[in-house]
Amino acid sequence: MTAVSQRPSQPASQQPAQSASLARLLTPGNVVIVGAKDSSPSSYGVVEGLNRVGFTGRIFAVNRSATPAHGLAAVSRCTAIGEPVDAAVLLVPAAAVGDVLDDVAAAGITTAVVLSGGWAEVDAAGAARQAELARRARELGLTIVGPNCLGFMNFAARTGAWIASVPPGVRPGTVAIVSQSGGIGNALVDLAAEFDVGLSHAVTTGNEAMLTTTEVLEYLVQDERTSTIALFAETIAQPARFMAAAGRARELGKAIVILKAGSSAIAARNAISHTGSMVGDDRIVDAALRQHGAVRVRSLEELVITAGVIARAGPLRTPGIAVVSASGGSVDIVADEAERLGLELPPLDDPIADGIRAVLPAFSTIQNPLDMTGGALGDEFEKVIAIVSRQDTFGAVAVLGNVPGYESCKVATINGLLATIGRGLRSATLPGFLLSQSIAHLNETGRGAVRSAGIIGLPGLGLGIPALAHLARWSRWLNQRAAQSGPPPVPLSGHPPPGLRLPVHGGALSEWAARELLRAAGVPFVPATLASSPADAARQAARFGGPVAVKLSSPDVPHKSDVGAVRLGVDAAAAGRAFDEVVAAGRSAGAAVRIEGVQISPMRRGGVELLVGVTRDAGWGLALAVGMGGVLTEVLADVAVRLLPVTDEDIGQMLAELRGSAVLDGPRGEPAVDRAALVRAIGRIAEAASRIGDRLESLEVNPLRADQSGAEALDVLLQLREAGATVDGMEVPGR
Amino acid sequence: MTAVSQRPSQPASQQPAQSASLARLLTPGNVVIVGAKDSSPSSYGVVEGLNRVGFTGRIFAVNRSATPAHGLAAVSRCTAIGEPVDAAVLLVPAAAVGDVLDDVAAAGITTAVVLSGGWAEVDAAGAARQAELARRARELGLTIVGPNCLGFMNFAARTGAWIASVPPGVRPGTVAIVSQSGGIGNALVDLAAEFDVGLSHAVTTGNEAMLTTTEVLEYLVQDERTSTIALFAETIAQPARFMAAAGRARELGKAIVILKAGSSAIAARNAISHTGSMVGDDRIVDAALRQHGAVRVRSLEELVITAGVIARAGPLRTPGIAVVSASGGSVDIVADEAERLGLELPPLDDPIADGIRAVLPAFSTIQNPLDMTGGALGDEFEKVIAIVSRQDTFGAVAVLGNVPGYESCKVATINGLLATIGRGLRSATLPGFLLSQSIAHLNETGRGAVRSAGIIGLPGLGLGIPALAHLARWSRWLNQRAAQSGPPPVPLSGHPPPGLRLPVHGGALSEWAARELLRAAGVPFVPATLASSPADAARQAARFGGPVAVKLSSPDVPHKSDVGAVRLGVDAAAAGRAFDEVVAAGRSAGAAVRIEGVQISPMRRGGVELLVGVTRDAGWGLALAVGMGGVLTEVLADVAVRLLPVTDEDIGQMLAELRGSAVLDGPRGEPAVDRAALVRAIGRIAEAASRIGDRLESLEVNPLRADQSGAEALDVLLQLREAGATVDGMEVPGR
Repeated sequence: MTAVSQRPSQPASQQPAQSASLARLLTPGNVVIVGAKDSSPSSYGVVEGLNRVGFTGRIFAVNRSATPAHGLAAVSRCTAIGEPVDAAVLLVPAAAVGDVLDDVAAAGITTAVVLSGGWAEVDAAGAARQAELARRARELGLTIVGPNCLGFMNFAARTGAWIASVPPGVRPGTVAIVSQSGGIGNALVDLAAEFDVGLSHAVTTGNEAMLTTTEVLEYLVQDERTSTIALFAETIAQPARFMAAAGRARELGKAIVILKAGSSAIAARNAISHTGSMVGDDRIVDAALRQHGAVRVRSLEELVITAGVIARAGPLRTPGIAVVSASGGSVDIVADEAERLGLELPPLDDPIADGIRAVLPAFSTIQNPLDMTGGALGDEFEKVIAIVSRQDTFGAVAVLGNVPGYESCKVATINGLLATIGRGLRSATLPGFLLSQSIAHLNETGRGAVRSAGIIGLPGLGLGIPALAHLARWSRWLNQRAAQSGPPPVPLSGHPPPGLRLPVHGGALSEWAARELLRAAGVPFVPATLASSPADAARQAARFGGPVAVKLSSPDVPHKSDVGAVRLGVDAAAAGRAFDEVVAAGRSAGAAVRIEGVQISPMRRGGVELLVGVTRDAGWGLALAVGMGGVLTEVLADVAVRLLPVTDEDIGQMLAELRGSAVLDGPRGEPAVDRAALVRAIGRIAEAASRIGDRLESLEVNPLRADQSGAEALDVLLQLREAGATVDGMEVPGR
Repeated sequence: MTAVSQRPSQPASQQPAQSASLARLLTPGNVVIVGAKDSSPSSYGVVEGLNRVGFTGRIFAVNRSATPAHGLAAVSRCTAIGEPVDAAVLLVPAAAVGDVLDDVAAAGITTAVVLSGGWAEVDAAGAARQAELARRARELGLTIVGPNCLGFMNFAARTGAWIASVPPGVRPGTVAIVSQSGGIGNALVDLAAEFDVGLSHAVTTGNEAMLTTTEVLEYLVQDERTSTIALFAETIAQPARFMAAAGRARELGKAIVILKAGSSAIAARNAISHTGSMVGDDRIVDAALRQHGAVRVRSLEELVITAGVIARAGPLRTPGIAVVSASGGSVDIVADEAERLGLELPPLDDPIADGIRAVLPAFSTIQNPLDMTGGALGDEFEKVIAIVSRQDTFGAVAVLGNVPGYESCKVATINGLLATIGRGLRSATLPGFLLSQSIAHLNETGRGAVRSAGIIGLPGLGLGIPALAHLARWSRWLNQRAAQSGPPPVPLSGHPPPGLRLPVHGGALSEWAARELLRAAGVPFVPATLASSPADAARQAARFGGPVAVKLSSPDVPHKSDVGAVRLGVDAAAAGRAFDEVVAAGRSAGAAVRIEGVQISPMRRGGVELLVGVTRDAGWGLALAVGMGGVLTEVLADVAVRLLPVTDEDIGQMLAELRGSAVLDGPRGEPAVDRAALVRAIGRIAEAASRIGDRLESLEVNPLRADQSGAEALDVLLQLREAGATVDGMEVPGR
């Protein structure tokens, strides 16, 4: 049996060409500012920004009156520049962009960064103007960045076309910033400078008339100068390409850290007004991001710090962190936050603890996190770091310490301690972090001390611990993925389903038809028969030898209970009457109701009831939801979500992450559920949904009943989308 | 009926004397450094810190060799100083502190700040040394701050005795920092400077041999220069005094913001090793803090920013916040985080929305949070701020904007916008905030711009939104409390319970005895009788006219089900046999089992089962826990906790905050529970527990069954503590 995928893979052949073209776009050798003007901060910002990154190319100025600007001679048209130019920054109003574009193209320029607003973000007329702009640009052989954006900076190559500001402290590195929003992109660059995170690129895409964040992401994943991508997005417009890029990032050991806005109702509404696109169900987005190893964060600060930490230290060999401190108060904050965030702080092995005990004063409590107490300020740090780094359940060492933030008489002492810690961390075989107590700004002395000690500095427990937790979780995910044999969506084991044919029409199937289709795909069901008359119903019920469920089977009555077309706990003697009742209830639902018969099945008692659903998300495809049935699902929305396909291991994790998961272990003295059988049953349901594929609208097995001896579906509702052809050669049997 | 309180109130007469003495202690007119030495950063730190806050008193140096230090002449003993000194900072090792203390006292000094470690934090011998130190100090008329602390700073009075460093940017204000941990105290002062939060005091108490955080808190609550207290604590050693101080703070409209470490298992273990005290059940601590209006935060940054915001703006007239922005991306982050944190962003009223529409471009989406789009950078801000501040569901206006963090060509533009925003916020009738996109450090230009615009700056969405959420929640709490008539612990309405006598011995009561005691206190119970023989049991069961529960009643078998001393769903015909079975089960539990009889009560079906428990916390007193029964409580630990006493409103809120709360509304087509009756029943249980008071060990009603027509207890377990006397005149009837 082979893996079932809903999404065609990207044609690999397109990748290199696109890559090369984006590499060219993001590395202009010279730049022209169209609309250059001394009084315009945007205009001067381009020059200032390029100067700050050490741009060595030429900058040209163009304005109607050919008035010099920023000390540059100016001409009135790009075609008058007289030499080839790579990129133009258009600071002109929206209404003038069209005319300027012709001039830009005529000058042989292939990239135009458009600052102006007033396009698709405004209204339908604006969207039409934007579409026309893109059409014209394509015709002219131009790529537009924006409109309504702040351009891009290529810090690695010391070039760009960036209308936002550039902080003096920014430095080249391997983190790339990508943001639809220009304002957010600018804030992220400022934060990178603040937190000493080195950047390869910053790209803002604005309205994405041509260049999209997805394309930029695809490029950066391949880019050799980039190790980690920090992405801010209100929507993920092309989920399939996003997932493919994430897969490639995984292969290369690169991380995508993402602040995905739009989890709230207000933000979802905003996103429509900004970009015209729906944000979709945030639970599905969240599941998709996690499944593809994207690190989801909640704030801009967390985005930059996490990307910086991963760029410098990730992935770890194992997710456990050793914490060493001289401050008891800080250790407690670390312990509390680590527990809350799921950051593993493994206990010290006995030989490691003994080693530490030999170094520290007798009264110290030897544990992880380790409080060395205020007295230990000498080379104990160096020794202890060396000792803990030998323990194989640790993937990194975090030292809590201070860094000078301002001039004071303590600076020399602190720097001495930093040097000791630095020696310890450098000689350790593990990545090491210096976790400052607070986020307070470091002055140049402090930065210098951290750099010269060769330490990865994390500013403040409040952001540093979450960043470490992200690094650890991402490392664990990457290691687990690497340990899996075969491609990521491992096929589910099982019997190959026989050929099934789906009906051509859309809408609901009867319970009986859905049941038989899923049974054929290996989903375990409660036994049932389809009775054709009251007498038949009574006969079938008697055969089951106990109370039965009597249910109408009709494609036109998907919600049988709502119309009274279900009778539960019926004795064989009453089955004939129940047959008549459910048929009558069905008929009362409408004249055209097709009745296939009445389904008879034995009543079940005990066990645990779950809900297993598969729904279609327009962008992300089919998503599997598993929840504890009854009150837990209905009241608490206690549901785990994954995109299809899933592995048995994924399903096991879904069950484990349910808040009511312990119900499966028989909390009230009842026997534990057969988890393996439950996982298999859910796997078959997921597999069947994947095989129905494009035709599937939704599938809900509710309840799926599990106990110590197995799992079986008690009811199912399957809704198809209209189609003209069979899919995957599946057929509906027994119609 | 009167309020029942478990805690004696503080004798008010002690307060002024203590206040005056602490005021004196925290305002030394001159200071001596004992152990002053040029090569010691701690020693020079005292001088540097005092200089930075503008101390105008004299600083003396003492060391054995009378070697000048920090440019000061030195003498070898305090008694040689030759003039009265207020405070001494002892930098000498622990072993030398005893001798120095005599000299300090002999010089007439009344305050000694002790830096050295090696006391109670080390081991039992250290604890004994510390106790002896305190005893000796008392004898000498000295107050010790510490040991193992960094002293205190009184920024409001520009004095102190502070061994930690003082950042250059720190400024006087009304936030007081209190921390057991010196290192944390120092980090908090650094953060206050970073975030431009003005300070009245910073006090670190270390091992608290004499001066405790509780005393400092009590003083600061009364201190006129302090409006808000930012407290870091690993333990709250004196809960009753803490709660009294919180009550006084509420009366004065002051806030206590607290980072209470120790919620994790590791931190709890650490706290014992640091301070020898237990942290207690964090859920009870959390409930106590919330009930007393203390604002609990998770990080040092959040502590300082929240305290700063409350000091400048709180309390708000109403908790709703209007958000105005020029950045769409930021607006979405605000919306997401507000939803996550429970920060109310009320929708715009129609007239307000119309007013805004008249000011903004036609294409803007008019809602709260308001995205004015990038085009609105002029006086629209001023106008819109004025308009939204007229809406009475808003208590504050937050404007998203940038502040210059470094020199660039954009600074003038940004400052112009800040001035516009500042004009708007100043003319508004509501407090206004400028919420920067990111936490990146502000340079002096940026700070100056915010200050000169008269704006309350919040650095970064990641910290600013939580701070606003805390401000709003605290304001709501304060307003609710102010709206309540009478004292905070409002008595529960109901019939006065008749006189009850409790047994003198401790341990469990039989179910029957506990039931009768609670019934007398007004708790509704399922009907029941106590049968004395099998025939009696059959007779009683027949009288109930349906299946009954048959349960042994014995004080010696508190967990009846565990030994098989309960039979459920018993028909009248089988009741006699059930009687014999449960009695036999009881006897098999031990020879000395006292059997009061067998309790017969009708079986109940349907409805919702809850668990209502009251437990005793050694520090905080009696705590009420209410949870949804069955799987929700057992598997999800879905329980709300409050200290007693509680009001009916508190109980209503407890039910509302249960994750399974919707079960009470009849989610599966069942009728909703009579919430008022349920609240009354829980109130009676809480009241009974309060009246049992000091004698109560624990009380558990499980289940308390509720349906559309009322609530009744089905079973109860009451455990008493040993005592020699009755409490509150209560008697146990019918023994």
